[in-house]
Amino acid sequence: MTRTERSRAVILRAAYDLIVEFPYAEVTIEKIAARAGVGKPTIYRRWPSKGPLLLDAVVEYAMLPEVAGAGELTRDIRTWLHSLIDYLADPVTGRFMAEIVGAIQIDAELARAWHERMFAPIRERNLVLVRAAQQSGELRAGSPDLLMDLIVGQVWFRLLVTKRPLSHDEVDEMLDLALAGAAGERNR
Amino acid sequence: MTRTERSRAVILRAAYDLIVEFPYAEVTIEKIAARAGVGKPTIYRRWPSKGPLLLDAVVEYAMLPEVAGAGELTRDIRTWLHSLIDYLADPVTGRFMAEIVGAIQIDAELARAWHERMFAPIRERNLVLVRAAQQSGELRAGSPDLLMDLIVGQVWFRLLVTKRPLSHDEVDEMLDLALAGAAGERNR
Repeated sequence: MTRTERSRAVILRAAYDLIVEFPYAEVTIEKIAARAGVGKPTIYRRWPSKGPLLLDAVVEYAMLPEVAGAGELTRDIRTWLHSLIDYLADPVTGRFMAEIVGAIQIDAELARAWHERMFAPIRERNLVLVRAAQQSGELRAGSPDLLMDLIVGQVWFRLLVTKRPLSHDEVDEMLDLALAGAAGERNR
Repeated sequence: MTRTERSRAVILRAAYDLIVEFPYAEVTIEKIAARAGVGKPTIYRRWPSKGPLLLDAVVEYAMLPEVAGAGELTRDIRTWLHSLIDYLADPVTGRFMAEIVGAIQIDAELARAWHERMFAPIRERNLVLVRAAQQSGELRAGSPDLLMDLIVGQVWFRLLVTKRPLSHDEVDEMLDLALAGAAGERNR
């Protein structure tokens, strides 16, 4: 590990430890610098502001789960949704995710950082699996993006809007509904 | 209109006018009082803080649409989703909704006010229609709440998380998917 890599690792670790202890709004570059034992300029040489730094820290130490891709997507995605809702129910990662998505509503630069560092890499990986499942006939044809949005959207909706986190049973029921369709017999 | 009602109406109008002009974070009780020509104590007699007041102003002047309930829910809900995404794409109401849902991530009291004043009344009304559609066989049996979450969740997910608002065409495709199911032929 070079000196630069070591310094990066120390800063990320300090940032993550602070995320565990404090709400997003109370974590500052100042606190991170003090905890890491570095000067603020050392941090600012690498990160423009605290948001991207905290995102990097979470990516490093507590990344959102990815779909494992064991072959049968409808089963893999159930496992993944369970780990996602556990992640979002966790007092540290769930709180951080709600706070950061709250903060991106009034901060376009942070929204870009969130998208690049956290959302897009997972989504890209998941889309590959969805496309494969569409080609094999496991999922119906159509926009893989819309399909992922349909499946994952309400998990975030519960976290952010209704504030009633999903249980494993509810997520199973929701996934069955998304796969089988909401239309009744009269309507098929 | 009594004097109290008139004063309430003047305050709500001032608050809404400020929402149109300023981001949520910049609207203050002070500005509302000045615009309404009343003292701050007059406002605080009725509202504990600016959040519930601004929510009341939006409920009064620009409420989220409700499902019309013309009889065939799958058609009504399509119309409603179109009006919902237009509402969330609107520079005033969409911005306000994103900002207020952003703010409830770190403000439990505001979260309660948002839920009571805005979310719950619309959801309750929609659930009545979903239950009727389930009884008629238009929608399949199951939790009406989960079904509404599935349909509406990704609209908010797009607004809040991916920041890629839905078009009418996309919402139609998403609704078709939710109704028909995402499973492919191999998987039915």
